[in-house]
Amino acid sequence: MQIDDLPIRDELKGKSPYGAPQLDVPVLLNTNENPYPLPEDLVARISERVAEAARNLNRYPDRDAVELRTALAAYLSRSTGHAVSREQVWAANGSNEIIQQLMQTFAGPGRSAFGFSPTYQMHDLISRGTGTTWIEGPRNPDFTIDEAAAATALREQRPDVLFICSPNNPTGTAVDRGTVERLYDAAQAVKPTLVIVDEAYTEFSHRPSLLPLLDGRPLLVVTRTMSKAFGAAGLRLGYLAADPAVVDAVQLVRLPYHLSSVTQATALAALEFTDVLLGYVDRLKGERDRIVTELRAMGLDVTDSDANFVQFGVFADTRAVWQAILDRGVLVRDNGVPGRLRVTAGTPEENDAFLDAVRSVLKES
Amino acid sequence: MQIDDLPIRDELKGKSPYGAPQLDVPVLLNTNENPYPLPEDLVARISERVAEAARNLNRYPDRDAVELRTALAAYLSRSTGHAVSREQVWAANGSNEIIQQLMQTFAGPGRSAFGFSPTYQMHDLISRGTGTTWIEGPRNPDFTIDEAAAATALREQRPDVLFICSPNNPTGTAVDRGTVERLYDAAQAVKPTLVIVDEAYTEFSHRPSLLPLLDGRPLLVVTRTMSKAFGAAGLRLGYLAADPAVVDAVQLVRLPYHLSSVTQATALAALEFTDVLLGYVDRLKGERDRIVTELRAMGLDVTDSDANFVQFGVFADTRAVWQAILDRGVLVRDNGVPGRLRVTAGTPEENDAFLDAVRSVLKES
Repeated sequence: MQIDDLPIRDELKGKSPYGAPQLDVPVLLNTNENPYPLPEDLVARISERVAEAARNLNRYPDRDAVELRTALAAYLSRSTGHAVSREQVWAANGSNEIIQQLMQTFAGPGRSAFGFSPTYQMHDLISRGTGTTWIEGPRNPDFTIDEAAAATALREQRPDVLFICSPNNPTGTAVDRGTVERLYDAAQAVKPTLVIVDEAYTEFSHRPSLLPLLDGRPLLVVTRTMSKAFGAAGLRLGYLAADPAVVDAVQLVRLPYHLSSVTQATALAALEFTDVLLGYVDRLKGERDRIVTELRAMGLDVTDSDANFVQFGVFADTRAVWQAILDRGVLVRDNGVPGRLRVTAGTPEENDAFLDAVRSVLKES
Repeated sequence: MQIDDLPIRDELKGKSPYGAPQLDVPVLLNTNENPYPLPEDLVARISERVAEAARNLNRYPDRDAVELRTALAAYLSRSTGHAVSREQVWAANGSNEIIQQLMQTFAGPGRSAFGFSPTYQMHDLISRGTGTTWIEGPRNPDFTIDEAAAATALREQRPDVLFICSPNNPTGTAVDRGTVERLYDAAQAVKPTLVIVDEAYTEFSHRPSLLPLLDGRPLLVVTRTMSKAFGAAGLRLGYLAADPAVVDAVQLVRLPYHLSSVTQATALAALEFTDVLLGYVDRLKGERDRIVTELRAMGLDVTDSDANFVQFGVFADTRAVWQAILDRGVLVRDNGVPGRLRVTAGTPEENDAFLDAVRSVLKES
């Protein structure tokens, strides 16, 4: 039996699963992971909190994740200076599941979602996976958003959901606060539109979070993750902040008890170590800036980055450059942006290996 | 802002989130949880395996959960005597997510799913949540499946997915192997149809698993969970066994890295303790049978049960009986089946409390 012999949905036929190639390479700088393992005292604390949870594992988890949402709200309030309540926060298995729940509630069959390409591919894929029509808007040549073109597109396309990814993956581009304000207004002027600001990488940004924009904007949602800044990609903990009514609304589609007791316990332990973990973020921001500077010194075109990764180019044969870097033991990502590649900021040693590889490739070409 | 002021999908308006009422009551027999906490040596093993996973938590989890699927395949092979390979097994956050992935792949907008009512409500809810039309077929008065009526309904309704829940929740009814064989054939005779046999409670059954039916039936899927027999409702680990092509197909819709490293580590630890945990199942089967016998001795109509719960009635005012039992400190479930309630088999003491409560209620009425 082959997939295409099965009665799967027509739009899935001939497709491949989403996911970065997983190769066995010395330096992995392809999935924007945080290179710093959790400190041993946090590992011990996780072990302790999970043991507590495991003693009650025969019971369903807290369906509403009250303790975790309270801790996440406290983190958001403290780190942005903007008070967020537990009622405004919702958590799920990765920000992908958060986005999926939002799309099931506010988009789906007969509705559409709009994003500025190139952007995080899962916005497109989750839209399609929930039966939502995906519409792409363009960016300026420097990968910022063209506000005038966006306003026209919103009027013409009338999407139900608007994605604004800031900092944007894979380009690293942060979006101005004013741009978000104007896009929100432009969208609402056409019809009530859920505006999702994806802040997965915001802790690495030179600019403050867009979270304070929630005030007075009941259809704005900010999504976050513990995968990057908290160094917990393996935990799969995404969350959102929004009007409490939005949190109530996603309850209508969330699978009951979607978030396991061990996930909740582990996330709570990691949040206890917020200050330690955000210390690694400062190091990574320095490394990210160093990568930008050094790549530019090599004469490459490097997109300004507010994330823990850097987009660089321009290459006539992107695939060949990707392979040549890989041949030197460093895996970076080809996200399909013409002429560009993306590298994650790793440890200083990993970044040196990457920079050496690029220098060597440029010399040979 | 209220939910209905938001631009949510029309079909969600006025709905309530799914989930049993969570009340603070001495005896909780309403969500089919296993009453036996995990043994302390398993808690220690979980703690150990999660610590190992946490040391690598900055990296994404194994996207394909290879070690876990291998262990689940070994468990299925050993417990059913039917060899199942890792390629036939897929795991997710609860069998709800497994079913959601199947519906996104094989059902969705413009397609329909068929189940025999009353049955597990999430089949209906996940169908609707994925834009799938939900069709209900009837059962016989004893809650078994009326095969002739089912065959007619399949011909007329032409569903894309057929759910067979065995043992069925909330009735406890197991489905004959021959019935499943004939329903599978009847469905395929109309059109290629995915047949999902939901075996969440099969370890509690008097009859063997339907897993061997996978042979030669590429559109049959058996779903399972670690929530019940493994006493791990808090873990949220569901899985399926099917043709490897079906496993390949759900990769097209699964969210990448959907299953966290801590979930995988905890599930692997629990699987190491399979024999200990299944020992509790034997106790619960004995208690389940005792509940059936004692309720019948009180003159009640009790549905034959192959699960860790028992459906009983018939009551003129079901809600009043539910409340009267609750007033005596025991929470059971009103699943909306006219005249019937459902009680989970708990510890001997919990079951005594329940039986005493029912006796007392019957005496007063």
